[in-house]
Amino acid sequence: MLIHSASQLLTLAGDPQRGRELGRLGLIEDGAVLIRDEKIVAVGKTADLRAAYPSEPRLDADGCVVMPGFVDPHTHLVWGGDRAAEFEMKLAGTPYLDILAAGGGILSTVRQTRTASIETLVAQARPRLLRMFAHGTTTVEAKTGYGLQTATELRQLKALLLLEDESRIDIAPTFLGAHAIPPEFQDDPQGYTDLVCETMLPIVRQWWETHAPGRRLPFVDVFCENKAFNLAQSRQILEKARRLGFPLKIHADEFDNLGGASLAVELGAVSADHLVKTSDADIRALGRSETVAVALPCTPFGLAECEYTPARKLIEADAILALATDCNPGTAWNESMQFVIALACRMMKLTPAQAIAAATINAAHAIRMANKVGSLEPGKQADLLILSVPDYRHLGYRFGTNLVRQVIKKGRVYSVDVGYYRTA
Amino acid sequence: MLIHSASQLLTLAGDPQRGRELGRLGLIEDGAVLIRDEKIVAVGKTADLRAAYPSEPRLDADGCVVMPGFVDPHTHLVWGGDRAAEFEMKLAGTPYLDILAAGGGILSTVRQTRTASIETLVAQARPRLLRMFAHGTTTVEAKTGYGLQTATELRQLKALLLLEDESRIDIAPTFLGAHAIPPEFQDDPQGYTDLVCETMLPIVRQWWETHAPGRRLPFVDVFCENKAFNLAQSRQILEKARRLGFPLKIHADEFDNLGGASLAVELGAVSADHLVKTSDADIRALGRSETVAVALPCTPFGLAECEYTPARKLIEADAILALATDCNPGTAWNESMQFVIALACRMMKLTPAQAIAAATINAAHAIRMANKVGSLEPGKQADLLILSVPDYRHLGYRFGTNLVRQVIKKGRVYSVDVGYYRTA
Repeated sequence: MLIHSASQLLTLAGDPQRGRELGRLGLIEDGAVLIRDEKIVAVGKTADLRAAYPSEPRLDADGCVVMPGFVDPHTHLVWGGDRAAEFEMKLAGTPYLDILAAGGGILSTVRQTRTASIETLVAQARPRLLRMFAHGTTTVEAKTGYGLQTATELRQLKALLLLEDESRIDIAPTFLGAHAIPPEFQDDPQGYTDLVCETMLPIVRQWWETHAPGRRLPFVDVFCENKAFNLAQSRQILEKARRLGFPLKIHADEFDNLGGASLAVELGAVSADHLVKTSDADIRALGRSETVAVALPCTPFGLAECEYTPARKLIEADAILALATDCNPGTAWNESMQFVIALACRMMKLTPAQAIAAATINAAHAIRMANKVGSLEPGKQADLLILSVPDYRHLGYRFGTNLVRQVIKKGRVYSVDVGYYRTA
Repeated sequence: MLIHSASQLLTLAGDPQRGRELGRLGLIEDGAVLIRDEKIVAVGKTADLRAAYPSEPRLDADGCVVMPGFVDPHTHLVWGGDRAAEFEMKLAGTPYLDILAAGGGILSTVRQTRTASIETLVAQARPRLLRMFAHGTTTVEAKTGYGLQTATELRQLKALLLLEDESRIDIAPTFLGAHAIPPEFQDDPQGYTDLVCETMLPIVRQWWETHAPGRRLPFVDVFCENKAFNLAQSRQILEKARRLGFPLKIHADEFDNLGGASLAVELGAVSADHLVKTSDADIRALGRSETVAVALPCTPFGLAECEYTPARKLIEADAILALATDCNPGTAWNESMQFVIALACRMMKLTPAQAIAAATINAAHAIRMANKVGSLEPGKQADLLILSVPDYRHLGYRFGTNLVRQVIKKGRVYSVDVGYYRTA
């Protein structure tokens, strides 16, 4: 199939976009892309591809922007229940300690996830996953971490495998057993850390080999923060995971700078995520590394905080910057990478071109899937978007709605109806 | 038709919600609403209405929230072109004066609107109007103000009448000839003020009687700010408009406190809008008046500014608070009242219930249409939403996407597909 007459075809072709290279869109005016089965075969000018493939079935982009599907490299897709009541309590002025006493906070989600069956977890995550897809996300990373006990963590992993099977969306799974200290270990974080290392990680490895044979191991991630896992505990978990062969990620510096970003660099983690309170030294370390810096602007937005990831500093330090939703039930229930781009432009002062690169090719590198997705290049998966806009800069400029017209995933076309139609 | 089994039916019934009354949802659990033709006939418990109307055709709300359609009482719906390139220039660090020198800013939209035909204006506004509708806005105020010359201002008014005719959406039009000083009058703002008063307002009145016979006159609005119309000029325009019988609105205190809010109160304006820099004295004046205070949180968000309308102060002062998108091509291209609610909760510290009331019944009062829309009460228009959530607090809590499942406008049902479907 030849998708043609894109006002702007953004290929995002090439290497990860490091530092000031960020924003290299590979823009082809009046562009076209040839896809066959699940793959991209050729990219170029409409006139050239029409001439070269005269009898190919055609899909007219009608002067819209065509670009790679978004890659969302940090989400907590699978959880039980919601925390809408807690959101209202906070706004009505209820003190946070009272909310915790009323069973609120992350442990509320842990409770609701532990008591949910696998069917319930899948049923509740499904509309979120489809909502992501409708907003143009064709590949998504998704974490466990609301079980904080082996059985529920494995149930979350299983839910991710089932969701990937039933959809056409690629899901990169991450084991985040070290997301918080579970209620059973409130007074013994080291005891839980040891449990993660000595019991959970080996079990996850074995479980994975049984349930996802031949498939790359999931990432292992840890929440390195004052009220979660300190730097030594984070190191203990990540080093153990590395010995078992897991690729690594880290939640670092969302609220406090504990040195998690430099730890990530030292251990060769694939990404370090959040990075709001990151020190200049840690930023320099990221800039000299292959560890992708993943900014999650929905989190400060969700919390109505003013401080965001210092993206310009990361760029100046030559880091590889990516963007993600952090979709989760506590701080940021948002499925749309378009909204992440709108925030990144305003709050982190990225240009639309930079934010787009951070949400596609660099995001693919943040989950080690850039060999398959994140750009429009021959041989890559045919994951692309037709946006209902004539210029890529409408991403960022406009906010609060969905600019996707069609999602093409592995060569199949899905229409997104942002309008309305009469049913009765 | 009986819409039944709403987990929560929000009626918003009753008077405008002043001061601390804001947030009175009129919530009926397991609620139902009976509609016939274009009107609401009855509201109550599912069991009661089912028993009373056993043979009525039914629409199952499936445990979702049902509520009135949103009323968006401040938009600039009709304009020509866009300013996406200017958005990128600003982020890339281009000084604002250079952007102006390159033809940017509001006068760029004026230029693109002046050169657009009526067909172009309608064609460009249509997807915005449909996008609003898909996000649950069933009644919208819309302003002229990108002509700044009689012919183009009338063309914008005409476009609004055509858009209302072709859609089922109620549009409350506003003449905003005094939106900015046009290029021809850059050195003579008083000359333009006189032109608005002596020429444009009488022509608009006459034009309206010819083109919309029998219909209520549009609002007349003025942009009372340092770089637009000063307080004396704003007064001159509004007093003249009042003498001609127009109902009044004002843009006040977006950037500077010139006293526009108190002027609005003094002249009995229907609303005063923006209100970011409003003084305590002006807030007290609003609190003692019937003038609705319309907050536009997308504007500071769009500009990445931290200061929002002091909603809590307005509530304490007993004002009638409403919310609107301010949808416009310069600072806030967003069509979704749901996103306005998400901002209002976080940045203005409204609860979801308060924000919902401000976006429905109070917003209807801000455009004097509360006799017809803004709440679910027998005799009112059947304008309502079925949201794909079980609890109203998901509005505000979640952000960046569209939670509407169905829009019912004047009794007709429209489905909004937030998911996707395969087309090829």
